[in-house]
Amino acid sequence: MYNTTELKAAVEQHIENLGLDQRKPANLYQPMAYILSLKGKRIRPILTLLAYQAVSGANPMKAMNLAVAVEVFHNFTLVHDDIMDRAPVRRGNATVHIKWNENIAILSGDALLAFSMDLVTGDFPERAAPLMKEYTRVSLAVCEGQMEDMDLALQEHATIPDYLEMIRKKTAVLLGGCMSLGSLAGGADEEIVGQFREFGESLGIGFQLQDDLMDAFPPEGFGKQVGGDIIENKKTYLLLKAQELADPSQRKTIAALMAENSDSKVEKMLEIFRQLDIESHTQALIHRYFEKAKYLGQALSQKTHFEPLRSYLQEIASRKI
Amino acid sequence: MYNTTELKAAVEQHIENLGLDQRKPANLYQPMAYILSLKGKRIRPILTLLAYQAVSGANPMKAMNLAVAVEVFHNFTLVHDDIMDRAPVRRGNATVHIKWNENIAILSGDALLAFSMDLVTGDFPERAAPLMKEYTRVSLAVCEGQMEDMDLALQEHATIPDYLEMIRKKTAVLLGGCMSLGSLAGGADEEIVGQFREFGESLGIGFQLQDDLMDAFPPEGFGKQVGGDIIENKKTYLLLKAQELADPSQRKTIAALMAENSDSKVEKMLEIFRQLDIESHTQALIHRYFEKAKYLGQALSQKTHFEPLRSYLQEIASRKI
Repeated sequence: MYNTTELKAAVEQHIENLGLDQRKPANLYQPMAYILSLKGKRIRPILTLLAYQAVSGANPMKAMNLAVAVEVFHNFTLVHDDIMDRAPVRRGNATVHIKWNENIAILSGDALLAFSMDLVTGDFPERAAPLMKEYTRVSLAVCEGQMEDMDLALQEHATIPDYLEMIRKKTAVLLGGCMSLGSLAGGADEEIVGQFREFGESLGIGFQLQDDLMDAFPPEGFGKQVGGDIIENKKTYLLLKAQELADPSQRKTIAALMAENSDSKVEKMLEIFRQLDIESHTQALIHRYFEKAKYLGQALSQKTHFEPLRSYLQEIASRKI
Repeated sequence: MYNTTELKAAVEQHIENLGLDQRKPANLYQPMAYILSLKGKRIRPILTLLAYQAVSGANPMKAMNLAVAVEVFHNFTLVHDDIMDRAPVRRGNATVHIKWNENIAILSGDALLAFSMDLVTGDFPERAAPLMKEYTRVSLAVCEGQMEDMDLALQEHATIPDYLEMIRKKTAVLLGGCMSLGSLAGGADEEIVGQFREFGESLGIGFQLQDDLMDAFPPEGFGKQVGGDIIENKKTYLLLKAQELADPSQRKTIAALMAENSDSKVEKMLEIFRQLDIESHTQALIHRYFEKAKYLGQALSQKTHFEPLRSYLQEIASRKI
């Protein structure tokens, strides 16, 4: 049994052992090594390892290539999304298209996706075809989610179902993919894989809604700037729900606030959110997704070695890691 | 037995049957359908089908998903290369980043690569892992080749070996990949797969050098503009060989020509090429690659049903198609 710290250290070590920074041409591989070295929490590979272990009962390290594939994929999306979003900073460091240039960012992003492919199937030859089928489904859904996010930003009348489907694809599908790929590699049948997938997606949507909520209503001592999404007019669940519940006068205020760029914009929008009790509405929706995950997790506990996965998720949910 | 026209028609039909233009979000899938609808010669998928048939003796149509995967991959590289090269036109039509925009081109290129993955392995579950390993090797090499091409353009002292390695990766590796993937899917062992791969790469380098040569010394009745590479100062084999063979005075003239943008630039550079007999030097090198391919082809003729592949390549070489 490994604890979370050990799993994370093993993931870091395995990423380093890929030796990307030694490969040529340097302009292709250095950016790949760079983005992967901006150490995140490595939630996705750890979830993959634990889903594999839950099903197989085997040493989770056996799924390390698959786990790292998911992390490499995630970093491919970061590099390309940062170009599309014109984002200069990622995890406190310059983004790839800023540190190098846009062409290099496009190409090293491509190479990250290409590099991940063999990592998915290499250690599980007898399940390589279904693994690649699932990986393709996940990859395409993530691309669809990013496109829907860009589409949504330009849309006058975005709906809440549109938004939920977008965040499902853009962020939750990959968490579901960690679970489905890990369990598939571990030898699970279609039904179990499906439960793992849905479990991961439900959690993913819940986490994303939590992020949206914290942007407007951060918990005590939360370091981040409040209202970044409001300043950018991001069509989050909070804004869409407020537009839905607003009376004509409030709706006019929201529209006016979205057109302005004043210092008081955030405070005024939060005031509307408070009038409409948006925090409770959002919390209720988050609760529904987490309840669904809990229900699926209970079913999976009966059939798999689910405890390490459950306890890791507990750690994440309490934001200890 | 199918003839080339039938194989090409079947490839076109299969691409249409993917139904990309029906999928949502339209901003993601329409550009994918669009680039694939700009019908090229479909050389790569046809080579894949014929390599599969050569080894297995089976109906080549059984490898159609794999063949189309290679074509989809090729189109992924076109979409992203066109962004990087700021190319406005592809096969007489607007490129994706011009017809839509750059973000859409990045993302639909990504989705083409993602979409291709399952097509590679789906029909050959028992060989899915080695197929994906080979596909990953090819994909990474193509990314490396594109990066080396961009690096080379900025390099003061590019060498002929640098150039040959770049074109090997940028264009020949994918032709080799058609052969290696097709033969692997057909059940070939490592030795045969290796011979197919090298056969395809040798042909690919030969074809690329032929393209370079035709840019400067087109055959009678060749429609294309002469000297496009010269105008752009592209470091082709012809230019690098001329720099190598030039005496100090010719070397000075070449450098001066590269710095100028006059109407007579092409004619003056061609004059240097003629003085140094660059056409013969290039033809000699092309001949060496084609001889190597011929030699490998003869070996493969002993062990596989090679004739349809050989005769298709003859058609390509004589530029009938």
